[in-house]
Amino acid sequence: MNAESIRKLFEQVRRGQLTADEAVDRLRHLPFEDLGFAKVDHHRALRAGMPEVIFGERKPPRQMAEIFARLAKRGGNILATHADQKQFAAVRKKVRGAEYRELARAIVLQRDSRTYGRGVIAVVSAGTADLPVAEEAVVTAELMGNEVQHFYDVGVAGIHRLLASREALTKARVAIVCAGMEGALPSVVGGLVGVPVIAVPTSVGYGASFKGLAALLGMLNSCASNVSVVNIDNGFGAGYVASLINRL
Amino acid sequence: MNAESIRKLFEQVRRGQLTADEAVDRLRHLPFEDLGFAKVDHHRALRAGMPEVIFGERKPPRQMAEIFARLAKRGGNILATHADQKQFAAVRKKVRGAEYRELARAIVLQRDSRTYGRGVIAVVSAGTADLPVAEEAVVTAELMGNEVQHFYDVGVAGIHRLLASREALTKARVAIVCAGMEGALPSVVGGLVGVPVIAVPTSVGYGASFKGLAALLGMLNSCASNVSVVNIDNGFGAGYVASLINRL
Amino acid sequence: MNAESIRKLFEQVRRGQLTADEAVDRLRHLPFEDLGFAKVDHHRALRAGMPEVIFGERKPPRQMAEIFARLAKRGGNILATHADQKQFAAVRKKVRGAEYRELARAIVLQRDSRTYGRGVIAVVSAGTADLPVAEEAVVTAELMGNEVQHFYDVGVAGIHRLLASREALTKARVAIVCAGMEGALPSVVGGLVGVPVIAVPTSVGYGASFKGLAALLGMLNSCASNVSVVNIDNGFGAGYVASLINRL
Amino acid sequence: MNAESIRKLFEQVRRGQLTADEAVDRLRHLPFEDLGFAKVDHHRALRAGMPEVIFGERKPPRQMAEIFARLAKRGGNILATHADQKQFAAVRKKVRGAEYRELARAIVLQRDSRTYGRGVIAVVSAGTADLPVAEEAVVTAELMGNEVQHFYDVGVAGIHRLLASREALTKARVAIVCAGMEGALPSVVGGLVGVPVIAVPTSVGYGASFKGLAALLGMLNSCASNVSVVNIDNGFGAGYVASLINRL
Amino acid sequence: MNAESIRKLFEQVRRGQLTADEAVDRLRHLPFEDLGFAKVDHHRALRAGMPEVIFGERKPPRQMAEIFARLAKRGGNILATHADQKQFAAVRKKVRGAEYRELARAIVLQRDSRTYGRGVIAVVSAGTADLPVAEEAVVTAELMGNEVQHFYDVGVAGIHRLLASREALTKARVAIVCAGMEGALPSVVGGLVGVPVIAVPTSVGYGASFKGLAALLGMLNSCASNVSVVNIDNGFGAGYVASLINRL
Amino acid sequence: MNAESIRKLFEQVRRGQLTADEAVDRLRHLPFEDLGFAKVDHHRALRAGMPEVIFGERKPPRQMAEIFARLAKRGGNILATHADQKQFAAVRKKVRGAEYRELARAIVLQRDSRTYGRGVIAVVSAGTADLPVAEEAVVTAELMGNEVQHFYDVGVAGIHRLLASREALTKARVAIVCAGMEGALPSVVGGLVGVPVIAVPTSVGYGASFKGLAALLGMLNSCASNVSVVNIDNGFGAGYVASLINRL
Amino acid sequence: MNAESIRKLFEQVRRGQLTADEAVDRLRHLPFEDLGFAKVDHHRALRAGMPEVIFGERKPPRQMAEIFARLAKRGGNILATHADQKQFAAVRKKVRGAEYRELARAIVLQRDSRTYGRGVIAVVSAGTADLPVAEEAVVTAELMGNEVQHFYDVGVAGIHRLLASREALTKARVAIVCAGMEGALPSVVGGLVGVPVIAVPTSVGYGASFKGLAALLGMLNSCASNVSVVNIDNGFGAGYVASLINRL
Amino acid sequence: MNAESIRKLFEQVRRGQLTADEAVDRLRHLPFEDLGFAKVDHHRALRAGMPEVIFGERKPPRQMAEIFARLAKRGGNILATHADQKQFAAVRKKVRGAEYRELARAIVLQRDSRTYGRGVIAVVSAGTADLPVAEEAVVTAELMGNEVQHFYDVGVAGIHRLLASREALTKARVAIVCAGMEGALPSVVGGLVGVPVIAVPTSVGYGASFKGLAALLGMLNSCASNVSVVNIDNGFGAGYVASLINRL
Repeated sequence: MNAESIRKLFEQVRRGQLTADEAVDRLRHLPFEDLGFAKVDHHRALRAGMPEVIFGERKPPRQMAEIFARLAKRGGNILATHADQKQFAAVRKKVRGAEYRELARAIVLQRDSRTYGRGVIAVVSAGTADLPVAEEAVVTAELMGNEVQHFYDVGVAGIHRLLASREALTKARVAIVCAGMEGALPSVVGGLVGVPVIAVPTSVGYGASFKGLAALLGMLNSCASNVSVVNIDNGFGAGYVASLINRL
Repeated sequence: MNAESIRKLFEQVRRGQLTADEAVDRLRHLPFEDLGFAKVDHHRALRAGMPEVIFGERKPPRQMAEIFARLAKRGGNILATHADQKQFAAVRKKVRGAEYRELARAIVLQRDSRTYGRGVIAVVSAGTADLPVAEEAVVTAELMGNEVQHFYDVGVAGIHRLLASREALTKARVAIVCAGMEGALPSVVGGLVGVPVIAVPTSVGYGASFKGLAALLGMLNSCASNVSVVNIDNGFGAGYVASLINRL
Repeated sequence: MNAESIRKLFEQVRRGQLTADEAVDRLRHLPFEDLGFAKVDHHRALRAGMPEVIFGERKPPRQMAEIFARLAKRGGNILATHADQKQFAAVRKKVRGAEYRELARAIVLQRDSRTYGRGVIAVVSAGTADLPVAEEAVVTAELMGNEVQHFYDVGVAGIHRLLASREALTKARVAIVCAGMEGALPSVVGGLVGVPVIAVPTSVGYGASFKGLAALLGMLNSCASNVSVVNIDNGFGAGYVASLINRL
Repeated sequence: MNAESIRKLFEQVRRGQLTADEAVDRLRHLPFEDLGFAKVDHHRALRAGMPEVIFGERKPPRQMAEIFARLAKRGGNILATHADQKQFAAVRKKVRGAEYRELARAIVLQRDSRTYGRGVIAVVSAGTADLPVAEEAVVTAELMGNEVQHFYDVGVAGIHRLLASREALTKARVAIVCAGMEGALPSVVGGLVGVPVIAVPTSVGYGASFKGLAALLGMLNSCASNVSVVNIDNGFGAGYVASLINRL
Repeated sequence: MNAESIRKLFEQVRRGQLTADEAVDRLRHLPFEDLGFAKVDHHRALRAGMPEVIFGERKPPRQMAEIFARLAKRGGNILATHADQKQFAAVRKKVRGAEYRELARAIVLQRDSRTYGRGVIAVVSAGTADLPVAEEAVVTAELMGNEVQHFYDVGVAGIHRLLASREALTKARVAIVCAGMEGALPSVVGGLVGVPVIAVPTSVGYGASFKGLAALLGMLNSCASNVSVVNIDNGFGAGYVASLINRL
Repeated sequence: MNAESIRKLFEQVRRGQLTADEAVDRLRHLPFEDLGFAKVDHHRALRAGMPEVIFGERKPPRQMAEIFARLAKRGGNILATHADQKQFAAVRKKVRGAEYRELARAIVLQRDSRTYGRGVIAVVSAGTADLPVAEEAVVTAELMGNEVQHFYDVGVAGIHRLLASREALTKARVAIVCAGMEGALPSVVGGLVGVPVIAVPTSVGYGASFKGLAALLGMLNSCASNVSVVNIDNGFGAGYVASLINRL
Repeated sequence: MNAESIRKLFEQVRRGQLTADEAVDRLRHLPFEDLGFAKVDHHRALRAGMPEVIFGERKPPRQMAEIFARLAKRGGNILATHADQKQFAAVRKKVRGAEYRELARAIVLQRDSRTYGRGVIAVVSAGTADLPVAEEAVVTAELMGNEVQHFYDVGVAGIHRLLASREALTKARVAIVCAGMEGALPSVVGGLVGVPVIAVPTSVGYGASFKGLAALLGMLNSCASNVSVVNIDNGFGAGYVASLINRL
Repeated sequence: MNAESIRKLFEQVRRGQLTADEAVDRLRHLPFEDLGFAKVDHHRALRAGMPEVIFGERKPPRQMAEIFARLAKRGGNILATHADQKQFAAVRKKVRGAEYRELARAIVLQRDSRTYGRGVIAVVSAGTADLPVAEEAVVTAELMGNEVQHFYDVGVAGIHRLLASREALTKARVAIVCAGMEGALPSVVGGLVGVPVIAVPTSVGYGASFKGLAALLGMLNSCASNVSVVNIDNGFGAGYVASLINRL
C-alpha cells in the first residue's frame, strides 16, 4: 500500500519521535503519489471491461507486438486501432488469441466478454466509405461490453432508407452517427430519436470537404439539440463515449 | 442606332469615297462598341421581364431614390435588394408604384407581370431566421415572372415536416433551398426531387458556423448530385438562376 | 386526433364504400403527417419535462412576448436563451410566472419541477468570463429536471483548485465543462472522472483565440477519451445532451 | 408490389376481422417502406437514361469489376468516375462493352444512346490542366443523353479566344465552365450568355490556389448573376446538374 | 550636421592628438547614425515629388491636424489617407491649401505639381463599390506627379465595356486594377496589355468574399504573368508602386 | 495557517486520540487544499513584487472598482489592463494612489517599488499604432520591478533607425518586440542581440493582416533562433515573461 | 491576312452587290477574330524577346519534348519551368541547343540573346532553401534579355550581410526578393532601395509556415510602400514582371 | 583586418594628405562592411558554446557530410537536426567523433562540454509521440552546455503523473513543454512553476489537430502568464531559447 509512508509518519508522531509541526513539514515533502492519488488508477481498475488501447499508426510491427504482449499479461481486453496486417502478423506470433478486424483496421484481444452496457448502441453511417470509422466505433463498443446494432448506407440523399429503419433506431439507448462530405446525417438522426447522439465526422470527400472539416463544422452546428461531436475519423472516441453513456 | 458609324463607312465605300482597304483600316480604329457588341445588350433586351437590379447596402436614401427613378424611366421591373425603410421612403416620393417587401428587405416596382417561367419554383427554407434570404429569392423569382411556392420551417431535425410536403415539392420544376447552421437541407431535398436544386447557405448560426461557412461547405459537399450552390445569403442569385432554368 | 382521416378511410372500407385497392390509393395521397408521423411529436410528449425553447437573439421584445405567451398556453416549462432585460419586461407583462436569470441571459417559466435526472450533473468552468455559458447550461439542466452542482473558476493554470473539488466531481453522473482561451479544462476533468464529459468551448479570449476556435480545436483533440464537444458558446446544447444522458 | 401489406389490412377491415381503430394502430407499426416510399425509386426509374454511378477512387480493381458487373445486369448506362487503367482492365474482363475514356479517367458502358436533352450543353475550360475535370463533365452529360460542345483553352488572360467562340456559346442551353487558379472564367462566360452557368473550380494551380480554394471562392463571388457552383474538381456533378436542366 | 563627431575625430588625428589606430577604435564605438546612414534619407530627398503620407484611420482630428501642419512646414506634397470630414475640418484650420477628396477619403496638400512620371497610369475598377480604393490610387499617383486615366465600372461580367476601352488601355505605361468579389479583372486586363499590372483586391462583397480574401487569392493565382498584387483595399500602395514604375 | 487541520490531526495522534491508520484515513478525506497545495500560493507570495492582475475588458466601472479595492487591501502592486477612463474614475474614488496610464490603457497601484530585475528589459516597437501594446508591456515590467528602456518607431522599412540603437539594444538582458502588419521586427532584433526575444504580434494593419494573424505567423516562423511568441496584442504576457527571465 | 473577309464585304458594297445595311448585318455575323483581334497576338509579336513558356510539372517527358520541339520551330527563346532531368533528356534528343539549369529546375533554349532591359534586375534571397525559386526568377529575367545581379543568403536575422550589399542593391532598377518562413526580407530591402520590389513568398519552412502562407501574408502587409507580391514559389512570375518593368 | 581602409584614411589625414572634411566624405562612400559590422560576428564568437546548426531536411547525405566537415574544422560543437541514418553514415566517414541521437533525429559533434547554464532546464512532454520533438530540445540544450531533466508521458488526461513530479519540476530554472493534440500541458505546467515556460506545439494528432494548429492556438491562448511559444515541432528553437535564458 502506497500510503505506508504516511502511516509511518503518524506512527512516529504517536511515539513522540516527531512533533506535529515537524510531521506537517515532512508531509509536505513526500512524493505526491503517496498522498492518495493512486486512487485515480484504483478508480480505473473499478471500471471493469475497459480495454487497454494502443494507437497503431506508424508503430513498427515489432514495437506493436511488444506493447501488445506486455499489456496482454495484465489481463483484460486489448484494442489496437489504426493497425495493419503486418502489425497483426507480428502480434499474432506473441499473443495467440488476438484477432484482426480488417474493416475497422483493429487488432483485438477479447478475454472479458461480459455485457456492461444496459441497452443497445446504434451505429449509423452515411456511405460505404465511412465504414472503417463506423466499424472502429463498433469494435470499441463491443470490446467494452455493449450490444451494437448498425445501420449502414443510409445517407440523407436517400432519406427513405433511413426512415425505413426508424423503428429500430428509436430503440437504441445511444446513437453514434458517422458521416463525411456534408455531415448532415446526425441532424436527421437526432430529430428522429430522443437519446444522445455522438456525431463522428469522417474525412470522406474531396475538394471543399477539406479532409473532414466540412462535416465537422456541419455537425457542430447541428439544429438537433441532442448532438455532440468528436474529432474527425475518431470512431474509437465515439465508441468509448457511447459505452460510458450506455453503462449509466 | 449605334451601328450608324459602320453603316456610314459602307456608304462611303459604295459611293467610291473610300477603297475597301481604306475602309478595313478605318474599321479597325472605330470605337469598339460600334462593332456590334451592342448585340450583347440587344440580347438583354430580348430577355423580356428581366428586372433592373440595385444592391442597396449602404446606399444613402437620396442616392437610392435617384438611381431607382432613373431606371424607372426605362420601363420594365426594378428590384432593389438589401434595402431598408428609409431608402424606401425616399424612393416612394419619386416613384409612386414602388412597394416595400419588408421580410425580403426589397423595394420592387413591378410593371411587367406576365409569366415567363414554364413551371413552379419551390423555395424551401430550414428555420425562421432563414426567411429574409428565402424571401429575397421569392421576390426575385416573382419579379422575373415565375409562379413560386414556398415551404418554410422544414429543417432536417424534424424531417417529418419536410416529408409532409413531399408530394407538392416533387411538382416543382426547380427548387431553391435556403439553410444556415449545418446546411443539410439541400441534400435531403435533392434526394426527394428529380430536378435541379439551387442551394443557398445563410449566415444564420453562431460559433463554429463562422457566418455561413459551415453551411456553405456542407452544401458544396452534398451527396445529392443535383445540387449547385450560390454565395452565402445570396437569395437574389438563387432566384435569378432558378428563373433562367424555369424559362428553358 | 390527427390520424382521424385514416380511421375514416378504414371505416369507409368496412362499410363497403371503398375497395381495399381504392383505399390504398387514397392513402397514398393523404397529407403525410396523417400517416403516423405525429408519433414523433407524440414521442416528444412522452419525454416529460422537456422545455419548449426560444432562441432570443435579435427577437424584438414584442415578438418574444407573443411566442412565449403562446407556448405558455400549452403547459410545460419554457426556456428563452440569449434573452435580455427588455425582452423579459415584455414577457413578464403577459406571463406572470416568468423569471429572468441574468447571468445566464435566460427567461424561464418553470411549471414542472419534478426531477427527471437520475444523478447529479456537474457544471465546471474555467474563468469568470465563461460564466454566462456555464449558467446557460445550468438553467437548461435544471429546467429539464436535474440536480446540478457547479464548480466555477477552476482553470488549469491553478490546477490545485480543480483538484480540491475532485471528490465532489467524481460523484457526478455526467459533467459539462466550459472553457475559453486554450480550452484545456475538459481534458483534465476527463482524466479525473470516469463519466461522459460534454465540452463547451467559449468565445472568451482575444487575438489567436479567434472567437473560440482555439478552444474548439483543443477540445476536439482532447487526449481524454470520454470527451465530446458542442458548438462554441452552446451552453444550452450541453445542458440538453447532459440531461438526456442523466435520464438514462 | 410493396403496398401489399397495406392492402391486406384494408381487406381485413372490409371482412370485419379488424375494426378501423385496430387497423390504424397496426398501420402505425408497419415497416416504413411499405407506406409508399418505394415511389422514390420508382420515380428514379422514370428518369430514363440516368446512369448508375460508381466513385472509383481507391477501389481495388477486383471490387470495381464486381460492382460494375452487378450494375450491368440491371440494364441502363454505367459511369465509373476517378477510375484508372487497372480498374478498367478488370472491368473489361467481365463486361465486354465497357470503354475507357482516358482523359476523363472514366469507365463507361453505354447501352441507352437516346437523346434526352433538348439543346446543347456547352463545356468551357480555361487551360489544358483543367481538361480531366471538363472531360468528366462531358462524359457524364453524353451518357445522360445530351449533345455536348466543348470550348477548351479559352482562359481569361487571352480573352479574344473566348470571344471568338461567342456566337457558338450563346447557342447553348446551359453552360459548364471549368477553371482553376483564379477561377475567373465563369464570370466572363456568365456575362456573355443568357443561360444558367454551372461553375466547376478545379484544383489546378499551386501556392495560394490552396488546391482549388481560390477558384472556388472566386466563383461563389461571381459578379455574373447566372452562375452557381459545384465542389472543386466535381466535373461529374456539373454534368449531372446541366443534364437535368437540359431535360426541362 | 550629424557627421560632425566624425569630422572631429579626423581633426584630432590631423592635430596628432590621436593615432590612426586609436581613431579607428573610437569610430567603432560612435553611435550608428553618425556613420553616414543619413544617406538613406538623403536618398529620399533626391526622390523629388514623393509625398509625406499619414494613415488617418482612428486619428483624432486634432492629432491629425498637428501632424499635417508639422509636415507642411517641410515643403513638398502631403497625403492623408483613410481620412474623414472631421479630420479635414481640423486640418483646414491650420493648413489653408489642404483639400479633401471625398471619394478617395483623402486630404491632400499639393505644392509640387511637376510631372515626374514618363507615361500614363491606367486605373481600372470593376464596380462602383470599388471606387474609394481606385480613387485612393488615383490621388496617390497624381500627387506623385503622374498623368492618370481611369476606366471605371468595367467588370468582367460585361466584358464588352472593358473591350471598348482596349485601345486606350494599351497606351498606358503601367496599369492598376481594383476589384472585389471574385477579383477576375486583373487577369483579363493583364491579357490585354503588355505592361505591368498592379492588382488591388477590395473588400467589396459579402458572404464567401470573406472581406476581400476571395479577390486576393484570385489575383495571386492570376493566369496572366504580368500581374503582381498589393494588400486588400491598399489603393495607396498600388498608386505608389505604379508611380515608381512610371518614373523609370 | 491553512495546514492547521493537518497539524491537528498529528496532535490527535500524538495524544493517542487517533491511531495512525485512522489518521491516514481521515487525511484522505480532508479538503484538498489542506494537503499542502497552498504551497503553490505560498510560492507565489515568495515571488515578491508580483502584481495582482485584473483584465478590464467589459467590466462595469463599479465592478472594476470593487475588485480593485478588495485586492488593494492585501498590499502589493495592482495592475488593471484593458481599462478605460470611466473605470479609472470609479477606482480612483475608492483607492487614492491609483494612477491611469493612458497610452497603455492600464490602471496601476504601485506600492512596492523595489527593483527585482537584474538588468534592463528592452521594449522595441515598429510603428506608432503598436504603442498601446508596447506600453502595456512596459507598465507590466515596471510594476514587476524592472528597469525598462524603450525603442519606438523602429520598423524594418527604415532599418537605419533600428541600427542606430544597436549599441543600446545589445545591453538589454531580455527584449520584447511588438509589431503588427508583417511582424518582421523580432527577426531583425533577434539577429542583432544575443539574448531571449519575446515577440508580440499586434492587430495593427488591415486587409490581409487578418487582425494580427499575419504578424503572428511571421513571428512563429522567425529565422532568428532566440525568438518566442505570445498571443496577439498580449503586451501584458510579454512583460510578465520578460520579468521572470530578468529575475533569474 | 485574317481581315480578308471584311475586305470582301467592302468590295461587294463597292460593286453594288450589297447595300450598306445588308453589309452591316453580315458584319455582325462574321466570326469574331476577323474583326481585328489578331492585333492582340500581333501585339505580342512586337514584344521581341518574350520567351514561350511551358509549365513542366507532371508532364510526361515525351509530351514535354514534343511541345518543346514544336515551339522551337517558331524561333525565339523557350523556357520550361518546374522541369526535371528526365524531361530534359527527352527534350535534348529533339532540340540540340536546349540546356538544363539544375538549380532553377528549368530547361531553356536561348536563341535571342539581345539585351532588352534598360538596367540591372537585383534578385535577393533569404536562405539557401529559397534558391530554386530565386534561380527561376534569374533564368526568366535572363532569357527575357536582362542583366541580373543576385544577392543570396542575406536573411534578416543577419542584417549586416544585407547591409554590406546596400550600395550594389541601390543600383538596381527593380528588385526581386524571395523569402520563406516569416517573409520579412522584402520589407527591409524595400526600405533600402527606391525602386519597385517584387516579393516572392516561398514555401520554405515548416509547421506554422503553412507552406508559404506565413511569408505570403507577411509580404502583403509589408510596411514598405514599394512592395508588390506574386504567388508562393512563383519565381517565373516575378522574373516576368520585373522584366516588363525593366523594359520601360 | 577589414578596418584597414579606414585606418588608411586616418593616416592620410594625419599626414595632411586629406582634410577632415574630405575624409568624412570618403568615409561615406566606403563599402559598408568596412565600417565595423564584423563586430556582429565577433560578438557571436564571444558567445562560447553556441553550436553551429545544420537543418538536415532533404539534404543529400554527401552535401550534409561536406557541410558538417567544413564546420568541424572551425572547432566548437555542431548540431544537425532533422537528420537521418544515411546522412549520419556519410558524416561519420568524414568526422570521427560525430554521434547519432536516433530519437531526436540529430547528428551531434560535441567538443566543448563545459557547463554554461546556471540551473536545470526541465523538458516536459505529453505523450510518446511527442518524444522526437522533446529530444531535439534536450539535445540542443545539452550541446549548449545545460543540465537537462526530462519529464515524459505526463499528459493532462492523467494529471496525477504530472503532479507526482511537481517538486522536481519547481526546481528547474526554465521549462520546455512539448505537446500535440489539444496542447494543454504548458498551461498546467505554467501554473505549477514560477519560471518561464517555452511551449512547443507538436504535429501529433489527426483530423481537427490540423498538423499542430490546434496545439499551437491552444498554447498561444494559455491562461498561464508565464508561457511563450515557438513554431510547431520546433524542439531546436525551444532548446535554444531556454539555453539563452539559463545562461542569464
